[in-house]
Amino acid sequence: MQYCNRCGSNVSLAIPAGDTLPRHVCQSCGHIHYENPRLVVCCAAEWEGKILLCRRAIEPRHGYWTLPGGFMENGETTAQAAMRETQEEAGADVEVQAPFAMVNIPHINQVHLFYRGQLRSPAFAAGDESLEVRLVAPADIPWNDLAFRSVAFCLERYLADRETARYGFHETNLRPL
Amino acid sequence: MQYCNRCGSNVSLAIPAGDTLPRHVCQSCGHIHYENPRLVVCCAAEWEGKILLCRRAIEPRHGYWTLPGGFMENGETTAQAAMRETQEEAGADVEVQAPFAMVNIPHINQVHLFYRGQLRSPAFAAGDESLEVRLVAPADIPWNDLAFRSVAFCLERYLADRETARYGFHETNLRPL
Repeated sequence: MQYCNRCGSNVSLAIPAGDTLPRHVCQSCGHIHYENPRLVVCCAAEWEGKILLCRRAIEPRHGYWTLPGGFMENGETTAQAAMRETQEEAGADVEVQAPFAMVNIPHINQVHLFYRGQLRSPAFAAGDESLEVRLVAPADIPWNDLAFRSVAFCLERYLADRETARYGFHETNLRPL
Repeated sequence: MQYCNRCGSNVSLAIPAGDTLPRHVCQSCGHIHYENPRLVVCCAAEWEGKILLCRRAIEPRHGYWTLPGGFMENGETTAQAAMRETQEEAGADVEVQAPFAMVNIPHINQVHLFYRGQLRSPAFAAGDESLEVRLVAPADIPWNDLAFRSVAFCLERYLADRETARYGFHETNLRPL
């Protein structure tokens, strides 16, 4: 970041009064540009015991399998983000049930939040960001071809909880490999 | 937002290729400025059955009571944010236990995440953003003088779960009053 998005002047790193961390502060108008972690919201959606997976058509991890998900947008709730991403990436209508897992990835300033849900019908179709979409039985999950460690964490905990029919809320942190 | 923070040229609202929502896009360098909801992380910290509350020294809601909390920073985990905010606002050392509640507030593009925790000692002191800090028994919680509805939601659920010693993960959405 080099310029103020309010007035177009140069910004410089400085610790504002009452703050503890350096921020990009405008040298002209004084506007402080805060940067904060982003929420990525995903959904583990089931239909008759199978889980909806998408094969990514975009980087990062093109060609690898993931749960539908993406950056939460302003003006929506986390559950709405989970529904929207499931619709956009997998063409599927999901009834979101509950938050299920949260994965902190501080080195990329992201928090991944996973919901569990049930598809309202077995209809699905690859969206622009997916090469293909499948309903996958637990035994057929492509563990070695999953796109993200957060997705693997969610699926592991989801299948374990499903065994007991008692779903918790699971949290973990990921560090660089 | 009027100017690109990469090159200083004017931005305009446009829907980027492959996107579905208007973004601030630089007319010169093409940089897309995404804006996303921010996570506010708070902590319900206990000591011998009492809960740590802070009276706000800043707006919004100057003079009202809240749980320690604030915007999550880049490079930290949600649990670290809860610990940091408890230290900064209440001068207290908390052992964070588990995520406990999540409150979506889409009209202000915020998600409030509450942890529960135990103080490591009964030491506390008002930070710069607090007028005073107290350990408050459940019967003495100032329900009519709480700063935020999300804090009331968390405290209600927390006290209810504490009765049964079974803590869940609770979610709600707030709309404008």
